[in-house]
Amino acid sequence: MTVTRTEAHAPAVRCAAPHVLGRCRALVRPALARAVEQLHPWVGEMASYSFGWCEPGGAPADHPGGKGIRQALAVLGAEAAGAPGQAGVDAAVAVELVHTFSLLHDDIMDGDATRRRRPTVWKAYGTGPAVLAGDALYALAVETLAVSGGGPDAIRMLSGALGDLVSGQADDLLFAARPWTGPERVRPEEYRTMAEHKTGALLGCAAALGALSGGAPPETVTALERAGRHLGIAFQVVDDVLGIWGDPSVTGKPVHGDLRERKKTLPVLAALDAPGPVARRLAAFLESAEAVDDAAAAHAAVLIDEAGGRTAALAEAADHIASVERALTGVPLAAAAANELRLLMDHLVDRDV
Amino acid sequence: MTVTRTEAHAPAVRCAAPHVLGRCRALVRPALARAVEQLHPWVGEMASYSFGWCEPGGAPADHPGGKGIRQALAVLGAEAAGAPGQAGVDAAVAVELVHTFSLLHDDIMDGDATRRRRPTVWKAYGTGPAVLAGDALYALAVETLAVSGGGPDAIRMLSGALGDLVSGQADDLLFAARPWTGPERVRPEEYRTMAEHKTGALLGCAAALGALSGGAPPETVTALERAGRHLGIAFQVVDDVLGIWGDPSVTGKPVHGDLRERKKTLPVLAALDAPGPVARRLAAFLESAEAVDDAAAAHAAVLIDEAGGRTAALAEAADHIASVERALTGVPLAAAAANELRLLMDHLVDRDV
Repeated sequence: MTVTRTEAHAPAVRCAAPHVLGRCRALVRPALARAVEQLHPWVGEMASYSFGWCEPGGAPADHPGGKGIRQALAVLGAEAAGAPGQAGVDAAVAVELVHTFSLLHDDIMDGDATRRRRPTVWKAYGTGPAVLAGDALYALAVETLAVSGGGPDAIRMLSGALGDLVSGQADDLLFAARPWTGPERVRPEEYRTMAEHKTGALLGCAAALGALSGGAPPETVTALERAGRHLGIAFQVVDDVLGIWGDPSVTGKPVHGDLRERKKTLPVLAALDAPGPVARRLAAFLESAEAVDDAAAAHAAVLIDEAGGRTAALAEAADHIASVERALTGVPLAAAAANELRLLMDHLVDRDV
Repeated sequence: MTVTRTEAHAPAVRCAAPHVLGRCRALVRPALARAVEQLHPWVGEMASYSFGWCEPGGAPADHPGGKGIRQALAVLGAEAAGAPGQAGVDAAVAVELVHTFSLLHDDIMDGDATRRRRPTVWKAYGTGPAVLAGDALYALAVETLAVSGGGPDAIRMLSGALGDLVSGQADDLLFAARPWTGPERVRPEEYRTMAEHKTGALLGCAAALGALSGGAPPETVTALERAGRHLGIAFQVVDDVLGIWGDPSVTGKPVHGDLRERKKTLPVLAALDAPGPVARRLAAFLESAEAVDDAAAAHAAVLIDEAGGRTAALAEAADHIASVERALTGVPLAAAAANELRLLMDHLVDRDV
């Protein structure tokens, strides 16, 4: 089953998104490298390590970094406004730095020891240095925008996105301590807000900052921001579905991993919110289970599915994808860039779920 | 012995600086509270806790917060430019938020468990939440400036100061791992750069942002920035002298604490850099001592003094105080505010050393 905005995708279309991502990464890389060179050498090494450019100690390396979704959205945002992609490069550098900063700090908060098959920065360099490197990346992001003449609107967008990101992370951390049922339970709408803040805000900021840098009128900037926010929620929901039912050989995540960690993801919350006896059985099961082993997780996955959690989550993702499309069609955009934006957005959510 | 910019101080003058600080805190407090209210409630609670406004859990409290040096410099910077102090309030809120953010993260990096006689935020709330709260405060600082119409110059100043702050903290952390002697030793000039970055940059930024907000011409903004930077170095050096020879009942720090922690402070570095046999004996002693107990620390303090480390450090502080005064007299400033700036600056460095 796939969640797509449009008609079935031919294989050629599926290949195109990585090509778009590669083109944008190549365009942004020199400016990103120049920005990182401005950092204190030790802090710069941690940043380079997290981008996959070096080993701990500084020896050059070429590990796969992130896909660069946010930098690509910034470049395509500028192009969608009719400007050359180069116009979005400073915005792309800024959002990529903010994203990296948030990964460094989130890995500390979540206690995650590996990322992209390598030790996380706090594992490789220590917690204190990783906190410091994150701080440096965020300062550099703001400085990059301020020096590029981004103006107060751009700075407001970036700091607003960071504020949302922090709110989303705070909610996500607090959800873990809340019960599955009763008046203190996490509601699906709280989840939606969390996902919009934690994932959508920076995606929206990336596309909007790119558009702003490309000289887009305010309606276009706002529309791209909205598109990015809906995309973020859809992405997070699809990720949650894959976290329960995804094929570990494709997702790279352990089977039922989110259930064993008792994460409050949308499929579970939607299932608990459904009427009927299965939802009640699921609630009783989740409340009684102290430790969730493989068998318990598999049992919970069946109950969630039977209570309609998977269907509800996929419908929710499809709704947000439709909102992305409405946002994109509501304003005039350069056709080629708009198509690449759609490719990229589909690529993010069109995974085998 | 005192290090002062000017003539001997009458007791009345010594009393005046706390009065100035209190006036500025009262002016800034409502705006600071409004800013903190914008935060995610959990993050806002951690911020309020760090300001002394509440207990862990949120119950209102009225613990002594910081003196508010940075917010006062911003208010006085605006007044020195001939504007009402209110003109500097947004800048004051921004620098106070950045300062608090840096305390939260530095306490994690340095493993400090108490601050102002209460558990540090990471001790009271956990490391992850303290990282998050710091991030939120920095985002709020940038947003406060951006929304107040600070313009790109203001944002550049703030992000530049944060970049310096991170550099200074990085150097300070790295100094600990370097040897006392040999080509890899820490030179006094490296110490100076570290202190300027770690302490001077934000003090300079505070005064300069205040002046900018008050409509000061660029020369005045630059002069106040320079004054704050020199003040920061002087403050740090005086702090180092007190950390070795200060009266624990006055400083609140353990006697010889910095020596027992083997911190690379200016009096030690200056003593090691001096010619003569005492410096060589000090070097041999520091290199041989594995753990520094009370007797060893007392012995080191005598050697540092005999090698001229205390005198050199106090001379260095006096030099920077003279530079502060040159910066302040080189530009036209409103007389009353300039006097209060001097009071405040003297208050910071004129402690019994």
